[in-house]
Amino acid sequence: MPKALITTVPFGDKNRLPLDLLEKDSIEYLINPLNKKLTEDELAEMVTDYDVIIAGTEPITQKVMGSASNLKMISRVGIGLDSVDLLEAEKRGVIVSYTPDAPAPAVAELTIGLMLTLLRSVQVSNMEMHNGKWNRFFGRRLSEITIGIIGVGRIGTGVIRNLKGFGSPKILVNDILPKYSLDQDFNIEWVDQDEIYQQADIVTIHTPLTAQTKNMVKKEQLLCMKEDAIIINTARGGIINEQDLYEVMQSGHLSGAAIDVFDFEPYYGKLREIKRCILTAHMGSMSVDCRTRMEIEATEEAVRFLTNQPLEDVVPEEEYAVQREGL
Amino acid sequence: MPKALITTVPFGDKNRLPLDLLEKDSIEYLINPLNKKLTEDELAEMVTDYDVIIAGTEPITQKVMGSASNLKMISRVGIGLDSVDLLEAEKRGVIVSYTPDAPAPAVAELTIGLMLTLLRSVQVSNMEMHNGKWNRFFGRRLSEITIGIIGVGRIGTGVIRNLKGFGSPKILVNDILPKYSLDQDFNIEWVDQDEIYQQADIVTIHTPLTAQTKNMVKKEQLLCMKEDAIIINTARGGIINEQDLYEVMQSGHLSGAAIDVFDFEPYYGKLREIKRCILTAHMGSMSVDCRTRMEIEATEEAVRFLTNQPLEDVVPEEEYAVQREGL
Repeated sequence: MPKALITTVPFGDKNRLPLDLLEKDSIEYLINPLNKKLTEDELAEMVTDYDVIIAGTEPITQKVMGSASNLKMISRVGIGLDSVDLLEAEKRGVIVSYTPDAPAPAVAELTIGLMLTLLRSVQVSNMEMHNGKWNRFFGRRLSEITIGIIGVGRIGTGVIRNLKGFGSPKILVNDILPKYSLDQDFNIEWVDQDEIYQQADIVTIHTPLTAQTKNMVKKEQLLCMKEDAIIINTARGGIINEQDLYEVMQSGHLSGAAIDVFDFEPYYGKLREIKRCILTAHMGSMSVDCRTRMEIEATEEAVRFLTNQPLEDVVPEEEYAVQREGL
Repeated sequence: MPKALITTVPFGDKNRLPLDLLEKDSIEYLINPLNKKLTEDELAEMVTDYDVIIAGTEPITQKVMGSASNLKMISRVGIGLDSVDLLEAEKRGVIVSYTPDAPAPAVAELTIGLMLTLLRSVQVSNMEMHNGKWNRFFGRRLSEITIGIIGVGRIGTGVIRNLKGFGSPKILVNDILPKYSLDQDFNIEWVDQDEIYQQADIVTIHTPLTAQTKNMVKKEQLLCMKEDAIIINTARGGIINEQDLYEVMQSGHLSGAAIDVFDFEPYYGKLREIKRCILTAHMGSMSVDCRTRMEIEATEEAVRFLTNQPLEDVVPEEEYAVQREGL
């Protein structure tokens, strides 16, 4: 009987369908009993005799694959592949699939919520009010500011789409990929990354984590930003250097930040000291509809693999190239 | 030399133009030195020899007007007139003007931010993260839910406009005014107020405070709402009964609330005990652009009055009718 290890938690919580799909085809499964993001060692110990991992963002490294002698397929619940050593998987003939479209609407919408919250100091006023302090904060509206979007793939373009009803904010975009055409209804300009840091009132990151984007936003970039600017990371931990962000905000620079993703999760680090930095627990994709779609799509792909059906969401060659060429 | 009392604070803070306008026409002014919302007694004491009040939301009652023997005009910085005894003003020949359009975009945008924050439990995750607790909350997206809007005047229609980029949420609307036509691009239905409470996942209030809307949302209405529904009040304190909201949320009903306006401000009441209730300090109109526009428009009107120019923003008769007929 084929066996699937489900490492991402929660799973099948709001909608049981993914579990039903596995059971229907008599696929034995285990949902990560530690109920948290696994470390490399924990995963290596847990994975030994599974055929498939239905995976979260835990590290699936050479060591993990080395201890998983039956492993034939990894089905990522989500889009990011920074956690999977694709080259090692390729070497071992382990197939990797993912769900690139499902998380985008939820991540984009959370990002807009974080923008509006930060622009109006809602999180600061809320904390102060709950502590018995009444302070009226001035804010800004989206149509009055410049929004800088680094990474305009599925999520970055979703952010732009969500901005449609808010007048005409000036939008600056940058991407490593060629300048494809964006919605003409918007006031969008392609610029260098440096210009985004210098000119945007909000900088929001929607790139994958790769060798090239690791530590992309360091002290140098943060200090180029306007004193009252805002930075948002709902992409991946490590793209913004956490220690640098802490030091820069501690010094009084930037009016706010929202960080949903961290180098090491669960996060208990120093950004907790900074009241004007909104912290959330990697919840970008956690809308019931998107999360359910991710779980179903990843499970369907695993079932297709284990029942010898043609696969539909195999990770394309360019993702391997990114890791091969250290891009 | 004519004298203007500016009661609303902050004033002229982000943009000095309103103060310049007064000085240019040699109008003497005082900005509320108590730097907080005035009580009736404080205002009665302060107002004695002023010709004009450039007013916030403090009570301008019979008693206040009785002690203001020179008062000839009230210029409200904002749209709400619940704080002004219009009938007493009429009796005394005191002109009342207001700035009905200026605050709307800022209030609408804050409302959308509060919706997104509550739908994704951002405020709860943020508080927990700052306290060292990592919990991933499930949320919902706007396009997956039903939004109920009570009051579709300038602000309510602004909320609808802001929703444009978020797919097609189902929108239920109700207003005391006739069912005028709303934007056909949206999925909007006019319904009874009861249906809004019963069917909406988010109920947001955008009515004025009048005899008819005072305590409009009591325990009865709150308990009709879905167990995991959300209620937002960026309109006026007193429309939702605060004690009832506290008791209902304390009992576990409703997944969240956001309250920006209170019976008595500054607010230090019991809703502070409820973590899933976002509290903000009457900041709906507090975007720099809208606030500046409100201050300039109210000041220009006061200057027009004091320099015998025709007025442009006199409160229309129907607002008097609301108070006369206890509507």
